[in-house]
Amino acid sequence: MTSELHEYDKDPQPKGIHAAELSAIMLSSEQVLASTRKLHAGAEGSKVSPSGAPERLPFCRVTEEDLAFFRKILPGRTIVDPDLVEPSNVDWLKSVRGSSEVLLRPQTTEEVSQILSYCNSRNLAVNPQGGNTGLVGGSVPVYDEIILSTSLMNKILNFDSISGVLTCQAGCVLENLSFYLEERDYIMPLDLGAKGSCQIGGNVATNAGGLRLLRYGSLHGTVLGLELVLADGQVLDCLSTLRKDNTGYDLKQLFIGSEGTLGVITAVSILCPRKPKSVNVVFLGCETFEQLLKTFQLCKGMLGEILSAFEFLDSECMRLLNTHLKLPNPISDCPFYIVIETSGSDPTHDAQKLHNFLEEAMTSSLVSDGTVATEEAKIKALWSLRERVTEALTHDGFTYKYDISLPVERIYQLVTDMRKHLGNQAKSVVGYGHVGDGNLHLNVTSPSKDPALLAAIEPFVYEWTASCRGSISAEHGLGLKKRNYIYYSKQSQAVALMGNIKAMLDPKGILNPYKTLPDNLKQ
Amino acid sequence: MTSELHEYDKDPQPKGIHAAELSAIMLSSEQVLASTRKLHAGAEGSKVSPSGAPERLPFCRVTEEDLAFFRKILPGRTIVDPDLVEPSNVDWLKSVRGSSEVLLRPQTTEEVSQILSYCNSRNLAVNPQGGNTGLVGGSVPVYDEIILSTSLMNKILNFDSISGVLTCQAGCVLENLSFYLEERDYIMPLDLGAKGSCQIGGNVATNAGGLRLLRYGSLHGTVLGLELVLADGQVLDCLSTLRKDNTGYDLKQLFIGSEGTLGVITAVSILCPRKPKSVNVVFLGCETFEQLLKTFQLCKGMLGEILSAFEFLDSECMRLLNTHLKLPNPISDCPFYIVIETSGSDPTHDAQKLHNFLEEAMTSSLVSDGTVATEEAKIKALWSLRERVTEALTHDGFTYKYDISLPVERIYQLVTDMRKHLGNQAKSVVGYGHVGDGNLHLNVTSPSKDPALLAAIEPFVYEWTASCRGSISAEHGLGLKKRNYIYYSKQSQAVALMGNIKAMLDPKGILNPYKTLPDNLKQ
Repeated sequence: MTSELHEYDKDPQPKGIHAAELSAIMLSSEQVLASTRKLHAGAEGSKVSPSGAPERLPFCRVTEEDLAFFRKILPGRTIVDPDLVEPSNVDWLKSVRGSSEVLLRPQTTEEVSQILSYCNSRNLAVNPQGGNTGLVGGSVPVYDEIILSTSLMNKILNFDSISGVLTCQAGCVLENLSFYLEERDYIMPLDLGAKGSCQIGGNVATNAGGLRLLRYGSLHGTVLGLELVLADGQVLDCLSTLRKDNTGYDLKQLFIGSEGTLGVITAVSILCPRKPKSVNVVFLGCETFEQLLKTFQLCKGMLGEILSAFEFLDSECMRLLNTHLKLPNPISDCPFYIVIETSGSDPTHDAQKLHNFLEEAMTSSLVSDGTVATEEAKIKALWSLRERVTEALTHDGFTYKYDISLPVERIYQLVTDMRKHLGNQAKSVVGYGHVGDGNLHLNVTSPSKDPALLAAIEPFVYEWTASCRGSISAEHGLGLKKRNYIYYSKQSQAVALMGNIKAMLDPKGILNPYKTLPDNLKQ
Repeated sequence: MTSELHEYDKDPQPKGIHAAELSAIMLSSEQVLASTRKLHAGAEGSKVSPSGAPERLPFCRVTEEDLAFFRKILPGRTIVDPDLVEPSNVDWLKSVRGSSEVLLRPQTTEEVSQILSYCNSRNLAVNPQGGNTGLVGGSVPVYDEIILSTSLMNKILNFDSISGVLTCQAGCVLENLSFYLEERDYIMPLDLGAKGSCQIGGNVATNAGGLRLLRYGSLHGTVLGLELVLADGQVLDCLSTLRKDNTGYDLKQLFIGSEGTLGVITAVSILCPRKPKSVNVVFLGCETFEQLLKTFQLCKGMLGEILSAFEFLDSECMRLLNTHLKLPNPISDCPFYIVIETSGSDPTHDAQKLHNFLEEAMTSSLVSDGTVATEEAKIKALWSLRERVTEALTHDGFTYKYDISLPVERIYQLVTDMRKHLGNQAKSVVGYGHVGDGNLHLNVTSPSKDPALLAAIEPFVYEWTASCRGSISAEHGLGLKKRNYIYYSKQSQAVALMGNIKAMLDPKGILNPYKTLPDNLKQ
């Protein structure tokens, strides 16, 4: 999954050039703002791309008095050295850049509360930041927002080995939590390529999906409690560790996936599954996508409770893997390939279930070839065929990338239709992704950046998705880059209600401005 | 689970007498109101119990013009015959009673929208009603609220046999959905004793828990989409069928468990699991609750993905089953009994896993005796030992009943402490419930209704629960009866925020007034 993070390496929206970005930090604050706005507005200058940043809102600017206050409550953890602030101004993909001059590193909820209470009264905008691994420009400032990093809030508060409920501060790195749990025979209910740096608070704030969603469900089900600090500094304690609690509205749900625009998550409690004793991976080939879907159905029935992943890639992906990464196809050539993973508590039973399923899939001619892995090295090799597609794509040229959620029976139709629609305009049009979750990664490559190609892809891809009631952002969120495309997936009344919720919880709009909600919000 | 519904048969809060209830419908509307208020205020007259109804709010009363409007949009489905309205005025337990004179039975979302738009403009209060199986007085009017029944909104809109996503109108009866799905090799992710009459819309509105929560999680995870009508008649379309959609705030979550106070659910889409091919039940005895918890841990590890229920009852429950229902103990006498259910895709594998687990549990002396059932008749017999505890309790005397959520390692301590606390005041103090979900059913019996005993139980039970950060309503909700106890489980800031959300979505407060939120809401 690490390669998933490269999906936006070359951002589909034209942004400024690297030289401008590099010189920005050498300029005065006003100049930086102008420069940044231009960067966000795109190379076309006045023709602002829908994903570009809107004008800076009239927040106050940080003064010496403000810094004195922050230094008093965060001695040694109020960072103003530009070199030290720099990594927090730029997103992981280096696709967007803010010009914040202040990075605050609180350690406690009380400190976060003091910061927000102060910023709210002073009308200072704040960019909450976790591991800064987001892909839609949601985790960095757009202008001079104060960066509030949760990195030092990294304490595990409690783990209940009977219920499997983990409670920790928001800044705990996902992989550290995984290590902690694995020693105790548990695992986290989510796993991401970015696990080495992403933080659980950011995972919850962005409703991260990842590899285990098919099996363990979304964070809306596994997160049992949250502690939050609201825009005015008020601490909202919803840090329940209970599986059942029907006393009033489930407020925490509102903050899961709100991308830091409604409150700052300071602590999380989450229900963790037991560590599986046995893991198997199988790689299969299908002649048609219809057969692939039938295989998915058979698999759900015969593997049942041990199925933990059902992923696919098409023959175009395999060609790119062969060509650019010299990865050989472990089976015979097929139009479609499937990666199935099982996780269970009994190796013998799991192997038998897999065997029975494979026998049935072969004899009923749903799959034409396949190979199974039970050893870790071979498991990794088979997984890499799915995981390294993104890397192979980067070698194929400039890549336009889309993360689309669709009714599972439609997911490949979008790839076929896009191919027809683009004809010879594109170099390659490929599809892969999480069949089990109805999540397609659609990728279009071109020898170089091609505005005409982009104009042929968009809004076609969004309109196609909307016509199937799909989602234009399955797991990455909207952040800065996709906020204005929200209407393709959400009804205008629903978006207006989101705006009302934002206005209620953050009336001055200081929390992560310019993110998630569209510019043309009608209230 | 059917017996669960009897939990409130004898309501712990003193209400009026049945004679008064029966005569109420013979009186004029004003007299009914006075009578009803007295019923809700309790037999003590001026000394209003915390769960009694507050004064009627100044909503308008239904006029002939209003009825003419309703008849126009709902010809033949605007019910004013008192005999026909009566069943909708009284809750399933016959513990609370409203005095509504109008029952509306829309068939479409558009009709619900027209009704609410009209009622909101006319300032008429509305009581949304599903199957009317709730246990906390949330599903019936308190005064003369118009009853909006979803019973005729019972169409299945779509079922996707590849993804397992079912979309249907809110008034579909849970059991009908189960039958529909079982024919297609799927099951509903929830199951309740009330399944024969409860409706999916009501299940979602009350965030129903039930028997399958341990395995398939809560409705916050399995409900993929909702269609809602807001108080002003606006239709909010969040009826997604996607597993992944990170485009903006997840608004539907707010309505799951809001008990009809924020909007009327008109359609639901829900993710359904495959039907298990094999089900086993085992009944075990433990010497201590600590051993029972260790058995739970062992079981989670060894049964893993096939574990679908872990329930318990204490020896006091067994005594009542023996005494009042003549149900024999199938194993030797023990202080604690466990019911474990497995559901899997391979009968042989499931049987082996169970065998290995039981061998380990026996040899490590965690359990002292046990019996296994694989045939349906014996499975039912073993389940009845858990399910019929409530029935046995009704034969033991007047029963004070509590539905408490606690950290799993504390759940039996409350029973022990209550026994010590009450001494000879109580006839029996028993504990049983869903260990897997940390959900205790605490019951105290007495030869007859005993205000002194009640005063000894409450607020002790709520304070004890609050001291462990437990929930005073694990799965039943707050409705009318428990709304004022919310502060035992929720921080006052959180409750205030709930009030703000209510004010935002339903500024006139017409939707299910007097429910869920406490009377002393500070905004």
